[in-house]
Amino acid sequence: MINKVGRDIPQEILDLTGKEVFQGAYAKQGVEYKTATHTVAPVMDPSYSKVVNSIEEVLKKCGIKDGMTLGFHHHFREGDMVVNMVMKAVHDMGIKDITICASSLGKANDPIVPYIEDGTITNIQSSGVRGKIGQAISNGKLKGLAIMRSHGGRVRAIESGETHIDIAFIGAPTCDEYGNCRAIGGKSDCGVLSYAAVDADYADKVVAVTDTLVAFPNIPASISMTKVDYVLVVDAIGDPNKIATGAAKPTTDMRKLLMAKYTTEFLVHTPYYKDGFTYQTGVGGASIASTKLLADHLRKDNIHISVGLGGISKPMCDLLDEGLVEKIVDTQDFDMDAIENIKTNPNHIEITASEYADPFNKGAYVNKLDFVILASLEVDTHFNCNVVVGSDGVITGAQGGHPDTAAGAKCTIVIAPLLQGRIPAICTNVTTVTTPGETVDVVVTDYGIAINPRRQDLIDCTKDVDLPFYTIEELRDMAYKMVGEPDPVQFGDRVVGIIEGRDGTIMDVVRQVKDFEF
Amino acid sequence: MINKVGRDIPQEILDLTGKEVFQGAYAKQGVEYKTATHTVAPVMDPSYSKVVNSIEEVLKKCGIKDGMTLGFHHHFREGDMVVNMVMKAVHDMGIKDITICASSLGKANDPIVPYIEDGTITNIQSSGVRGKIGQAISNGKLKGLAIMRSHGGRVRAIESGETHIDIAFIGAPTCDEYGNCRAIGGKSDCGVLSYAAVDADYADKVVAVTDTLVAFPNIPASISMTKVDYVLVVDAIGDPNKIATGAAKPTTDMRKLLMAKYTTEFLVHTPYYKDGFTYQTGVGGASIASTKLLADHLRKDNIHISVGLGGISKPMCDLLDEGLVEKIVDTQDFDMDAIENIKTNPNHIEITASEYADPFNKGAYVNKLDFVILASLEVDTHFNCNVVVGSDGVITGAQGGHPDTAAGAKCTIVIAPLLQGRIPAICTNVTTVTTPGETVDVVVTDYGIAINPRRQDLIDCTKDVDLPFYTIEELRDMAYKMVGEPDPVQFGDRVVGIIEGRDGTIMDVVRQVKDFEF
Repeated sequence: MINKVGRDIPQEILDLTGKEVFQGAYAKQGVEYKTATHTVAPVMDPSYSKVVNSIEEVLKKCGIKDGMTLGFHHHFREGDMVVNMVMKAVHDMGIKDITICASSLGKANDPIVPYIEDGTITNIQSSGVRGKIGQAISNGKLKGLAIMRSHGGRVRAIESGETHIDIAFIGAPTCDEYGNCRAIGGKSDCGVLSYAAVDADYADKVVAVTDTLVAFPNIPASISMTKVDYVLVVDAIGDPNKIATGAAKPTTDMRKLLMAKYTTEFLVHTPYYKDGFTYQTGVGGASIASTKLLADHLRKDNIHISVGLGGISKPMCDLLDEGLVEKIVDTQDFDMDAIENIKTNPNHIEITASEYADPFNKGAYVNKLDFVILASLEVDTHFNCNVVVGSDGVITGAQGGHPDTAAGAKCTIVIAPLLQGRIPAICTNVTTVTTPGETVDVVVTDYGIAINPRRQDLIDCTKDVDLPFYTIEELRDMAYKMVGEPDPVQFGDRVVGIIEGRDGTIMDVVRQVKDFEF
Repeated sequence: MINKVGRDIPQEILDLTGKEVFQGAYAKQGVEYKTATHTVAPVMDPSYSKVVNSIEEVLKKCGIKDGMTLGFHHHFREGDMVVNMVMKAVHDMGIKDITICASSLGKANDPIVPYIEDGTITNIQSSGVRGKIGQAISNGKLKGLAIMRSHGGRVRAIESGETHIDIAFIGAPTCDEYGNCRAIGGKSDCGVLSYAAVDADYADKVVAVTDTLVAFPNIPASISMTKVDYVLVVDAIGDPNKIATGAAKPTTDMRKLLMAKYTTEFLVHTPYYKDGFTYQTGVGGASIASTKLLADHLRKDNIHISVGLGGISKPMCDLLDEGLVEKIVDTQDFDMDAIENIKTNPNHIEITASEYADPFNKGAYVNKLDFVILASLEVDTHFNCNVVVGSDGVITGAQGGHPDTAAGAKCTIVIAPLLQGRIPAICTNVTTVTTPGETVDVVVTDYGIAINPRRQDLIDCTKDVDLPFYTIEELRDMAYKMVGEPDPVQFGDRVVGIIEGRDGTIMDVVRQVKDFEF
């Protein structure tokens, strides 16, 4: 069945998943649903202890068995040790057919690939995957289906009951013996535990995994003891040197600096640029550079950002400390500066992933965004974006908050260099659609800017601005002229994964890669 | 059927409510249940507005109809205006058969009595009732059954799905247009919104009612926008002069000072009195005096309270500011000092009623209490307490956190003067059981102290302390000798209310009062 972004979703995938095709970014507005339920074993006896000393013990206490779904968060990023240690124990106990529902999986989790190959893990639900896990999925090693979800979409899937987590493992930098988890104060500070909140709310069993047991009460807690069944103490939950991988160095890449300049010039000429606007940007070089340029405008124009949101890094924290940003609402910290900043600046506030981006609650922060500045691997002439599948057809990225913020923001600006190496980033059809073009307003390349024709208001208000405006087709043609129109990636027939829309519908499918045939 | 505290619960009440009789304070430890579900209408459209301008409008938008259950909190205490204004609108719209599920109802809510009499309100669920509502219920004016629940028990009832709230009204001292509620910063500061958290989590429709609309985002929020459907702006939600009704003046009553002295002397000779102990006390004169005496011991012994909890007033905040208490976890503020303190002292932390006292989550603060000091209208020779029904048989009090803290604390001390006027507070059988004797360890009167024989450890460790120890029977006999054994209150047959155990079982029933017959 053809969906709203023109992708043909195979009937057998619709049947298998019970899902609908994507029908538009706001199709589910106000459509009532019943929230999920979960099982709770009450702790009324004051003498009851939650502390356990081995993964095997806690897995047994939680009733681990074949076919269960385990929840994980990715706040330790490339330093994460929790997924690997839990899955090794699950594997060693001979458990099969596990579904991993993680907020994301990265290269740190490469060691679980053998458990995919041997059937310990048969389904993966994640924002995205990188490294060897992505290759394994794209090569058809995963028995079941990979589901790629946005950060908001994961909350939706869990709270709507579509995904039921049997046991959630919450890596906690500090934890007391009753389960109060904080993201700071231990050996592996990660700043916030935002993605884990929904696991704590909806999983049957919740295990806090910590390497730093602290005195009760460890508060204010990111995850409350009232939601934690067991506290597992281990030697190490993360590699502190790899947690803050997003450390942004000022870029010297002329293409990125040019795109940053275009972005800022465009932004300040829209009507949303006024005192109290809200703003999210990523941690790519062009985004960071654009935030720095924006700060100069803010100072000159005496304009303040009321809320900066999303994944947070040093440049945004500097603006907070300077008073140019009034509040940061934080779901993820990309560098040590951000982790330190949330400890010291009371206007830097942890929020849950639900508060950030969930499309199925009663209103998330993304809905209040004026601007979001995003990167993309590919953008097509329908303004559809692809942030998950590489130009070689292999899954190598993550949805993150991309579709959530694009849907929410009044002005969504996507930055992409016209060419990624020898591959055109602006193309006729993206390899895989992750973010629907109806939610993308402006595309900024190093060769020029295209405004979505749906946004005549933005075209009108910037028509006199001295910027190289083109149609999206013109940008594509420029790219194709330079490097030629690339042959499409050749896929096999088998669907190995789906790109889930944030509302739970199917945006696109990902097929197994096959060797290129001449 | 006779329950664990010896009360005969009529079969028709068990049939009517579907409840079990009380089987012991920890009978439900680890007994799994499924959490409740509720309906959510997602807000994905960024242009959607939540602001409504009249109660009638919001009631219509929420689909108000006969038979619904409405949720309210009591943080505005004797200054509350929300219950009355909502119920007047409901009444004026001709709606009937409403169940009110409030965290408590006080004299401020006397104006709803006519709506009880005319069938607008037919069921009341509350921690307790005072004033004319109590009289109306005890006189049989309520068509249905009044359910008196502890603060923890209310959370349990809602999260277990026993009570489903159709529309929750959350009076919010400040709120932004997207529903972020804070307890401070407006015309009717109340410090915390702890009791309302479960309503926001489980009600189908959640209405924030405020008289002070502030700029977005109003954070850190007590109640998140993600749980709020509508924001109703009214002229006034509370009378600031009546919100802080618990303002404690140092008592000069010699009986209370004596009981305070006994309490403190006992407490400091138990093994729980050591650095880092946890402590809750009420706001009665004797409790406050006992906290002051305790502070002298803390200073002398260089001992600190790690956590002070429960309803908070100035004396506890003073200890926090002095450093004798390390953290306060707060569910209710009884005076202006406490409300100011939570704004300024970062170690004074708001928690939800679930975190405070819920018996059906995975472990509440009450479970971690070393000491709780409570008052009681009556205590009997089984150490059962009554805090709800007056000696005239009329409902006039509230369970509050009494049964929750008693069940949780390692040492539960109940303070009661031997005589309440001409009525013995120590008696053979309390009029109504609200807190089971198995959870009450020590009774302190102005004539002496009785330790529950179940606590031989406490008897042993204080046997050499110079305090007037008696058996509970001896204390009762003293009281009866002075004023005679009172005739029992004469009740009619009709059961007008139940005293619900914190785990949802029936602790006792309350019958309609009848004129005294000679």
